[in-house]
Amino acid sequence: MQALFFDVFGTLVDWRTSIAREAAAILRPCGHALDWEAFADAWRDQYQPAMEEVRAGTIPFCKLDALHRRNLERILPRFGVAGLAEETLRDLNLAWHRLAAWPDVPPGLARLRRRFRLAPVSNGNISLMVDLARRNQFPWDAILGAEIAGDYKPKPRVYLSACAAFDLAPADCAMVAAHSSDLAAAAACGLRTIHVARANEHGPGKGETEPTVPVDLAVADLEELATKLGV
Amino acid sequence: MQALFFDVFGTLVDWRTSIAREAAAILRPCGHALDWEAFADAWRDQYQPAMEEVRAGTIPFCKLDALHRRNLERILPRFGVAGLAEETLRDLNLAWHRLAAWPDVPPGLARLRRRFRLAPVSNGNISLMVDLARRNQFPWDAILGAEIAGDYKPKPRVYLSACAAFDLAPADCAMVAAHSSDLAAAAACGLRTIHVARANEHGPGKGETEPTVPVDLAVADLEELATKLGV
Repeated sequence: MQALFFDVFGTLVDWRTSIAREAAAILRPCGHALDWEAFADAWRDQYQPAMEEVRAGTIPFCKLDALHRRNLERILPRFGVAGLAEETLRDLNLAWHRLAAWPDVPPGLARLRRRFRLAPVSNGNISLMVDLARRNQFPWDAILGAEIAGDYKPKPRVYLSACAAFDLAPADCAMVAAHSSDLAAAAACGLRTIHVARANEHGPGKGETEPTVPVDLAVADLEELATKLGV
Repeated sequence: MQALFFDVFGTLVDWRTSIAREAAAILRPCGHALDWEAFADAWRDQYQPAMEEVRAGTIPFCKLDALHRRNLERILPRFGVAGLAEETLRDLNLAWHRLAAWPDVPPGLARLRRRFRLAPVSNGNISLMVDLARRNQFPWDAILGAEIAGDYKPKPRVYLSACAAFDLAPADCAMVAAHSSDLAAAAACGLRTIHVARANEHGPGKGETEPTVPVDLAVADLEELATKLGV
């Protein structure tokens, strides 16, 4: 195994409490008092349907930032929020660039980097990945994933374009994710698969504690992964 | 200015003495005794004509590694080298992944990274850029350039796709290069331009000591650039 590819939202960063925190910081001063976690969940619920329009060819590929913005404008009325300034909307949308990593991630990646090439293979766009990396010290060799492939996971070309960028056969690469569906799609492309348990991704006790599909390795966090891979 | 884009061959790495050294290390044990610098020059001389075939649409886009390989097979007979094993040819071709940086580059980039997003905007492919970064401690935020754009510099889309990947207007980005032709093309796309003098790129005293086109800034090396930009 020569490269490790990482899912990011949920696997490396805690999007739910980060979005709740960012939304509160931006909207409270405007006089709004929402259920911030419910707001984060509602925004995230729009994620797969929006990407599905791209995957199905209904709309052309666009950056995830653009889908997030459209989804944001769709859900704000449901929470009684209207009339936000363009600057505020833009800032709120960039909350996805300011997500915090799970605590095991920075030390785990630092260890894994000693032996493996590391890249995110996420549906997030390049600039979003760069901002998360700067904030959380992710030591990427390159930013791969949806924007490079021009389509969204779980489309095969997203995984395969990442292997090709590193000049590696799929069997020399592993996809690391907290979501069995992502790993199943990667395995179908010939990649090895590593499941990371993120028991609280969708709230306390709401996350995959173990894979629901066969995987090559299942770990509790990236420190355990580094130890199991001998680095 | 928010991002600095870097030309790599010649600007950051000393391809000529590196290729001469690598070729000698690989071919001497096979009994060959060439003029190693002349060999490096001959290989590099094939670089622009090969890319021109892609830029002109004569052949589809392929990674620079593939062009380097074709160019290598073209020049070897001229130096009386024949019958190399496939493994040796492959290793020799990957000499471009093992180039050494000019000494000011690692400390210069480390300082520049404090204030700017940094990416290579090179004609080299992603895996080549990753290997050079690992070897020389280039602290890239992302690998941009030809492979992302699907075409070769000086085509405008290579510069513009890099700006777009970072969500930046061209005027918020600067191209840093030791070659006036690269800077002229970047300026035509609206980027700012910074010339770095590499007086010995093509051998002692054979390199651009100053730009032959108008630029925003001209420096002797990346340490001076960091100082001039206040980092």
